[in-house]
Amino acid sequence: MSADSGVVVISVDAMGGDRGPAAVVAGIAASAAKNPALYFIVHGDQAQLRPLIDARGIAARCTICHADDVVSMHDKPSQVLRSGRATSMWSAIESVRNHEATVAVSCGNTGALMAVSMIRLRKLPGVNRPAIACLWPSRNPSGFNVMLDVGADIKADAPDLMQYALMGTSYARNGLGLTRPRIGLLNVGTEEHKGRAELKIAHEMIAAAAEAGQFDYVGFIEGGDLPSDQVDVIVTDGFTGNIALKTGEGTAKQIADFLSESLRSTWRSKLGALLAMGALKRLKARIDPRRVNGGVFLGLNGTVVKSHGSADATGIAAAIGLASQLAQSGFQDRLAARVASVPQTGQDAPATADKGENKS
Amino acid sequence: MSADSGVVVISVDAMGGDRGPAAVVAGIAASAAKNPALYFIVHGDQAQLRPLIDARGIAARCTICHADDVVSMHDKPSQVLRSGRATSMWSAIESVRNHEATVAVSCGNTGALMAVSMIRLRKLPGVNRPAIACLWPSRNPSGFNVMLDVGADIKADAPDLMQYALMGTSYARNGLGLTRPRIGLLNVGTEEHKGRAELKIAHEMIAAAAEAGQFDYVGFIEGGDLPSDQVDVIVTDGFTGNIALKTGEGTAKQIADFLSESLRSTWRSKLGALLAMGALKRLKARIDPRRVNGGVFLGLNGTVVKSHGSADATGIAAAIGLASQLAQSGFQDRLAARVASVPQTGQDAPATADKGENKS
Repeated sequence: MSADSGVVVISVDAMGGDRGPAAVVAGIAASAAKNPALYFIVHGDQAQLRPLIDARGIAARCTICHADDVVSMHDKPSQVLRSGRATSMWSAIESVRNHEATVAVSCGNTGALMAVSMIRLRKLPGVNRPAIACLWPSRNPSGFNVMLDVGADIKADAPDLMQYALMGTSYARNGLGLTRPRIGLLNVGTEEHKGRAELKIAHEMIAAAAEAGQFDYVGFIEGGDLPSDQVDVIVTDGFTGNIALKTGEGTAKQIADFLSESLRSTWRSKLGALLAMGALKRLKARIDPRRVNGGVFLGLNGTVVKSHGSADATGIAAAIGLASQLAQSGFQDRLAARVASVPQTGQDAPATADKGENKS
Repeated sequence: MSADSGVVVISVDAMGGDRGPAAVVAGIAASAAKNPALYFIVHGDQAQLRPLIDARGIAARCTICHADDVVSMHDKPSQVLRSGRATSMWSAIESVRNHEATVAVSCGNTGALMAVSMIRLRKLPGVNRPAIACLWPSRNPSGFNVMLDVGADIKADAPDLMQYALMGTSYARNGLGLTRPRIGLLNVGTEEHKGRAELKIAHEMIAAAAEAGQFDYVGFIEGGDLPSDQVDVIVTDGFTGNIALKTGEGTAKQIADFLSESLRSTWRSKLGALLAMGALKRLKARIDPRRVNGGVFLGLNGTVVKSHGSADATGIAAAIGLASQLAQSGFQDRLAARVASVPQTGQDAPATADKGENKS
């Protein structure tokens, strides 16, 4: 998938996560060890970061960019836009804006990160609403489906949903290596007469754009299809996507808790769990949210990866791994080309769209 | 909870489910054996139903009400309203309308069942949008939370959401035995500034109605809180609720499949699974969707329980069990009183609402 196997620079906001800069620097160290092409601009309090980076022995791979201030989880996006210029988050986005880094990674406040990214990176020409795409554990060979939007905005009309289909196609191609992703539109039923008005229009628009966009449109899908192997990219508005994402995570955690309570209930089950430990660990890894850590902001002039606020070193390393894969595949330029290639009206797009653009 | 421990008559649509009338009659037989107060009006093809009922030895507990026709899973609601008078579903609702039965149970096409219920039973005075409430496996002592709406409608404005809070309170009180249910409003974040405009208004309205409505309002909750023990009733619009419900079910099924694949992967894990079989069976029962089988239509002049289309005898029996509990608790009259007790404007409701109504 690598379009350029040279040096890749990742801009990392080291301060905003729940576990503080130590977890972020540990994640950077793990990523640096795994991928020798990576270099980092690490944003935050120099006095805290310098000893952490030195202790990990990664000083040669990291440039510290000092920032006095930190965005907290409770800061409102509007506050951060007004008075957040000295924060590590702002500084991390600025490195992408200045082309010093290809991708930014932050585990800070999602709303603030989206707001700063929007204002500083600006929307791609042709994009109305940017989106956050997440990876969803599925039965597909890659192990994941893509879902977007999971919370960049709280609504989306039909042309927005069609753009999500295009952006999701680009992400699935460059992030998951799928040549011809299958796109589904999330609805309350699979029949054509179901759902809200904007979904029926989006259904027509996405179907009409499939040939030019080089994806397969599988039509409406339901909540139960999110982990299925019948679809690669799930398109929905940010309100619904956010609730679905958190419901799925909550259900997985609930079942994992119930399973562990069950297995601890008798001596027979404890012994059984001991024997099955390897299998149970594989299951845990398969549904581990840290493996799929990293929502990607799509539709801006630059790529931003949002890690979970509570991410530990493993989670941060996963987010950096995703960021570096996207950077190395030349994702950003391809996404821009794809969005520009399909006219906004959609209905009449296929005949006129540029079919020569087949890598985006 | 029983307000009237005399005979309870349940109207059952025996024809519309995926597994045909044999599964439905088996479910009726299981319910009849468990609860001697129950009698049934069984709607459908007499030629098929008579031998099934006789074979189960429940002829004395069942009256067959012949219907020539069946609503299929693919019939559009509008078709059924035009030409569905001879169907078993229509007939089952008619028994509630005529006060021959207290509650109707069907595992047929949800859209058609809602449409027929709306037209024949009519909305309760004061209700704008009826809702479907489902039970969600949770960490609460009862084992369940209530969520509504999960698909009666595809939208809800602020006054609708407040009515869902009232109807959900009534259902939690009579269906789960909770004296003072805790109500949460589903949103993309718990902060007050998050979410769509109608949610912010509903937030104020529900908070203002809590004292008069005798519930506790816990505020905004997120998708991850659905199985939590911090809330009893989750209020949301029917589009979001339907997607959340199916996402939760899909995730649970996915993890159960992954678990069973993991446990079959090595001889050690197979042996472990054998030893832990009792614990695994308890887990399976705890998250078994058949245990929570039965969406309840709220806000009509009569109660209708919608069972899963694919329900087997165990699932049907669960739906009938829920229907009979609601019938025996006098739920319908209490719900009507509750909805009537809080003025539609909501904002100024508490001071004027009738505080004497404390059982609804």
